[in-house]
Amino acid sequence: MKIIIDAMGGDNAPQAQIEGAIRAVQELDIDVVFVGRSNVIAEELIKYDYPKDRVSVVNANDVITNHEEPAKAVRSKKNASIVVAANLLKNGGGDALLACGNTGAILAAGLLVVGRIKGLLRPALATLLPTAKGPKLLIDAGANTNCRAENLVQFGYMGNIYIKNVMDMKNPTVGIVSNGEEEGKGDELTKSAYPLMNQASFNFIGNIEGRDVMEGSCDVMVCDGFVGNVILKTIEGMGHVVGNMVKDMFMHSALTKIGGLLTTKGIKDFKKRMDYRSYGGAPLLGTKKPIIKGHGSSDATAVFNAAVQAKKFVETNVIEEIEKSINGGERNG
Amino acid sequence: MKIIIDAMGGDNAPQAQIEGAIRAVQELDIDVVFVGRSNVIAEELIKYDYPKDRVSVVNANDVITNHEEPAKAVRSKKNASIVVAANLLKNGGGDALLACGNTGAILAAGLLVVGRIKGLLRPALATLLPTAKGPKLLIDAGANTNCRAENLVQFGYMGNIYIKNVMDMKNPTVGIVSNGEEEGKGDELTKSAYPLMNQASFNFIGNIEGRDVMEGSCDVMVCDGFVGNVILKTIEGMGHVVGNMVKDMFMHSALTKIGGLLTTKGIKDFKKRMDYRSYGGAPLLGTKKPIIKGHGSSDATAVFNAAVQAKKFVETNVIEEIEKSINGGERNG
Repeated sequence: MKIIIDAMGGDNAPQAQIEGAIRAVQELDIDVVFVGRSNVIAEELIKYDYPKDRVSVVNANDVITNHEEPAKAVRSKKNASIVVAANLLKNGGGDALLACGNTGAILAAGLLVVGRIKGLLRPALATLLPTAKGPKLLIDAGANTNCRAENLVQFGYMGNIYIKNVMDMKNPTVGIVSNGEEEGKGDELTKSAYPLMNQASFNFIGNIEGRDVMEGSCDVMVCDGFVGNVILKTIEGMGHVVGNMVKDMFMHSALTKIGGLLTTKGIKDFKKRMDYRSYGGAPLLGTKKPIIKGHGSSDATAVFNAAVQAKKFVETNVIEEIEKSINGGERNG
Repeated sequence: MKIIIDAMGGDNAPQAQIEGAIRAVQELDIDVVFVGRSNVIAEELIKYDYPKDRVSVVNANDVITNHEEPAKAVRSKKNASIVVAANLLKNGGGDALLACGNTGAILAAGLLVVGRIKGLLRPALATLLPTAKGPKLLIDAGANTNCRAENLVQFGYMGNIYIKNVMDMKNPTVGIVSNGEEEGKGDELTKSAYPLMNQASFNFIGNIEGRDVMEGSCDVMVCDGFVGNVILKTIEGMGHVVGNMVKDMFMHSALTKIGGLLTTKGIKDFKKRMDYRSYGGAPLLGTKKPIIKGHGSSDATAVFNAAVQAKKFVETNVIEEIEKSINGGERNG
């Protein structure tokens, strides 16, 4: 198996991308192709000891920054690393693509270069959240700002298959994020999606509320990309604020500082449980080939974990199953 | 000043309502009227020592539970405590109403019994959030599931005046909660609201993102009630989960338990900073008279703090200013 890595995308690129991917080569029995400025990549690669036949480089001189209009940039910058990487994926130069750059550009490259699965209306970004009951999937986490009921149903199918296959979950529960649990609750979109979800072949449990998100009451949480983006970023922001508050808690006095030292092991565990990096990246679901969007601030550990996820994404035939369920799932309901 | 208290609404009613309100009578120089089953209220009141001439009771035999359809219940249950209390407010039997029961019923009583401010399209629920930069206002926190751009603009006016007057904030900043900071980002609603907000006479700073909510980047955060409900409950749920994780952090081993004991002061401070009770309740803005919705699980402290807020709501002429700004504010922009 070969994973294509956009070596230029992300706050810590290319160092984190290369360190994480080399570790993946060493530990996961995979090959990688780095896409980006080959001289920059070569300079980084010198630092590592790795099986040379498993690592290759494809040159791409341009990058798409966070300030560019994604679809336009993907169309015009033919030599940008994400565009070259997406073309490589499309043409069989690798089995999956991992990228940590401009989210919009990754979505646009997935849609415009790699293309949608047949019958799939809109690809969606899915994110694993570290909830009280373990990792749960939020879909759409930001790809589609305005959605129709049919989109949400397809997000349900895709999320269901992804978490079932990649996270080894049996009969996952699927819910709609709404402003109340009862069937009648919701805005126009969620109310119209409810009866369609009810007829789908996955294990639909109805509406869930915001408070269920981090409680982990449901395995696959479906919403439009506007709401998903707001939820995800609210959680990120609160994680940051609470992290600082926990720090303050121990900086209160000499006594609490000693308390903090004694609690080191507990704090480590706390941080680990709140760490986005442990689940790797966010899969873009609905494209013809596997694409994983890594967090912009990914370090080498996050890149490695995203590679673990990408490997499982490929191995467990997520895309074939999505195609089948989209084009026949509703009839089996 | 006289505050009307729905003595029957809330998880800890009537004990918490009566204890908190009696403390308010003793400390805030206000009168209170309790509305509810007079025999039950009388039994509670016996426990306290208070100036008898400042406390009265209005009997109401019915209650509206959380399982009833709010508007229907408000229309049919003429003797429900929230309906009697709203009529009392409307007819000058008090200056403000504080209720901790069924949110929908409080909204319906506000709308159907007390009525909207002239020119105001839709009242909204506003909530003070304990952010990293102190209390900030989220509006609408759940009253209006489907909104138009004009509603968001009016929420901006109301939130601006409330936080300015009640929280003594000079020239508060107002932002739209969206899925990106740039002007072009957003769903149809937020994109159409942006130019209207830009023309308004308050200090509009553009879009904010989910991560800004708990960072406190903006004083008044405007959104529709669906998004507001999801944000609020996501924060509540995460607060609960993180609270448990902090507990686990100290329960890790004998050493971390001692760490916890040494950190007691810090933990107390942490809990206080995350405590919803310190800001009292959520004002319903846009009705002709002040209504405060207390949290369903309010204890006596939360009821007392909500009474502090209700008093300031009345004293600072929030409603008069809202009426003026709604009916002339846009011309001053």
